[in-house]
Amino acid sequence: MKRRNFLASIGLAATASLLAGCGEPESSATSTSAVPAEPAKSTYEWKMVTSWPKNFPGLGMGPERFSKLVDEMSDGRLTVKVYGGGELVPPLEVFDAVSNGTADMGHSGAYYWKGKEPAAQFFATVPFGLNAQEISSWIHYGGGQELWDDLYKPFNLKPFAGGNSGVQMAGWFNKEINSLEDLKGLKMRIPGMGGEVFKRLGGVPVNLPGGEIFTALQTGTIDATEWVGPYNDLAFGLYKAAKYYYYPGWHEPGTMLEFTVNLEKWNALPADLQAIVTTAARAVNQDMIDEYTARNNAALKQLVEEHGVQLKKLPDDVLKQLKTISEEVVAETRGDSEQAKRIYESYDAFRKQSVEYHNISEVAYYQAREL
Amino acid sequence: MKRRNFLASIGLAATASLLAGCGEPESSATSTSAVPAEPAKSTYEWKMVTSWPKNFPGLGMGPERFSKLVDEMSDGRLTVKVYGGGELVPPLEVFDAVSNGTADMGHSGAYYWKGKEPAAQFFATVPFGLNAQEISSWIHYGGGQELWDDLYKPFNLKPFAGGNSGVQMAGWFNKEINSLEDLKGLKMRIPGMGGEVFKRLGGVPVNLPGGEIFTALQTGTIDATEWVGPYNDLAFGLYKAAKYYYYPGWHEPGTMLEFTVNLEKWNALPADLQAIVTTAARAVNQDMIDEYTARNNAALKQLVEEHGVQLKKLPDDVLKQLKTISEEVVAETRGDSEQAKRIYESYDAFRKQSVEYHNISEVAYYQAREL
Repeated sequence: MKRRNFLASIGLAATASLLAGCGEPESSATSTSAVPAEPAKSTYEWKMVTSWPKNFPGLGMGPERFSKLVDEMSDGRLTVKVYGGGELVPPLEVFDAVSNGTADMGHSGAYYWKGKEPAAQFFATVPFGLNAQEISSWIHYGGGQELWDDLYKPFNLKPFAGGNSGVQMAGWFNKEINSLEDLKGLKMRIPGMGGEVFKRLGGVPVNLPGGEIFTALQTGTIDATEWVGPYNDLAFGLYKAAKYYYYPGWHEPGTMLEFTVNLEKWNALPADLQAIVTTAARAVNQDMIDEYTARNNAALKQLVEEHGVQLKKLPDDVLKQLKTISEEVVAETRGDSEQAKRIYESYDAFRKQSVEYHNISEVAYYQAREL
Repeated sequence: MKRRNFLASIGLAATASLLAGCGEPESSATSTSAVPAEPAKSTYEWKMVTSWPKNFPGLGMGPERFSKLVDEMSDGRLTVKVYGGGELVPPLEVFDAVSNGTADMGHSGAYYWKGKEPAAQFFATVPFGLNAQEISSWIHYGGGQELWDDLYKPFNLKPFAGGNSGVQMAGWFNKEINSLEDLKGLKMRIPGMGGEVFKRLGGVPVNLPGGEIFTALQTGTIDATEWVGPYNDLAFGLYKAAKYYYYPGWHEPGTMLEFTVNLEKWNALPADLQAIVTTAARAVNQDMIDEYTARNNAALKQLVEEHGVQLKKLPDDVLKQLKTISEEVVAETRGDSEQAKRIYESYDAFRKQSVEYHNISEVAYYQAREL
């Protein structure tokens, strides 16, 4: 037990009896309030529910690192116990559990809540949307945070950016994709907006939790699957069940995760602990993409060199068609409220500017490096 | 004044006289040590020197935000007063001032210290090196931080990543650059390794502090200049002195800034304040690139649409030659020590992996988005 916790646990009754040891109660009251000591600050013990297995590589390390940073910075005044998906509530009930106070915090992805608020998807990822650097910039300097706060407030939640996987991979396939024809009738595990786009091109999107993907692919229940990227995909052993690994991840070009805090719990925190929570979330948001960047690099090498995976790019005409349909699907499913329109317009304006600027900065530099 | 500071300032003499108000000294001593109160923690007042004018847009906001975060998170136990370049020590004496304890912290760029340690440049940027996402990943998950700690330890310094400008622009020119011929005899403000590369291609590199660039360009003392990117360049009014704005910034593809802390001051901090400093630096490291990404987008639009700037890409054969010479210059100037070799090898291996992985993730996605 930490010293602060110990002191806090002494409680008021003990205080009174200790004070009674001073012969002159009034004087002693003065002395205890004015000596160069401080009243013990309140301690807070929070529970954080997540949508990932405990300590899941990449995604699941975000909440663990957040908890460690907050504990260290607050010297134990705020402790956050992390629960894997299903330990306290099912993986996809994180939003509700934090909203109703069953848990104090959550770590998940905003696109899981599209059934409640279609526009929530813009705070995770949409097909052909912002990449990791762009969405972080939109949230913190493009008005995104304010729009997100407004969207989640009626649900009694305060949201924070909570990590990013970077551009994902298009997925694992058991046959080559040479044209749009090859997508027809293909059974693929691909959820969300990406799945809807895939369906409109003649594919058969299937929803499966992560843990069932490998067997479904190996037994032929599905013909293809997307998951995350080389680091997570290597760990799942997907290379044993499919031969072709396609890029780029048009459907998830920079998936941002989220921390959510119960609004009453948030408002009850003193200002220093609020600053600690906000800053820890910000640090974790960068830490995750830093980790993925390093580990995806190494995992890709291993997949290709040790496991003979065939790395392939989706043909341009397939990507072009996916992009056209994606724009339709995003426009149709973005939500009809005034609020949803404001979010879409803000996101879309930022995307247009980002495309222009990144063409002459990041893209032009990547190309120059290859000359 | 914050409550904590106020309490700390009461001091021991006051304490003694207040305690005297309690009739039974022994009892009162018991009561003050055991009530649910804590001994006042030490407070720390630090000075941070920087290489930028106070509140300089972008670069100079990093130290300001760091100071604010640390103050909030520590509830005033650690305050960091920020000095602009020249206020306490000249802009390029930050390293020495923190090393010898004149200041407790600094905010600057590691490439300024190449005269002391040539390998320091890898912890800022080198021509055709890592971009912002890659260098952050190398520092935090690729072994960079440990190498940096070792390099700075003999100088009594603890370094942290402290922000990134992203891919910079190649610069402002008064004539078009159509071939390598056009660089010959050109007087350009371009410092560091980039300047050396430029010189080997027949250019005349000139060193000028930021504040003198505009006039030198306008009066024809120089023919061209690089600075940072659209956001900073717009603020400097460089578009009034030159017409052609070239990209990409091959010489500074993702300049990382640094916080340095005097090692004795660092070791004297309690663990919670060390965690607060480390995490605030990490948050600021992402915050700066978030800000540049948003503001460069907007500034570029303004430069082109309102000020008629002609945006141009350096020809491929020029970029190709710049790359070849850059590799020579980096290899020659990286330093000869065993330590310098280890740093170079770690950086270079990370770069090679990054190129491979980013080609199939970020680059392929940027291209798909343009189809």
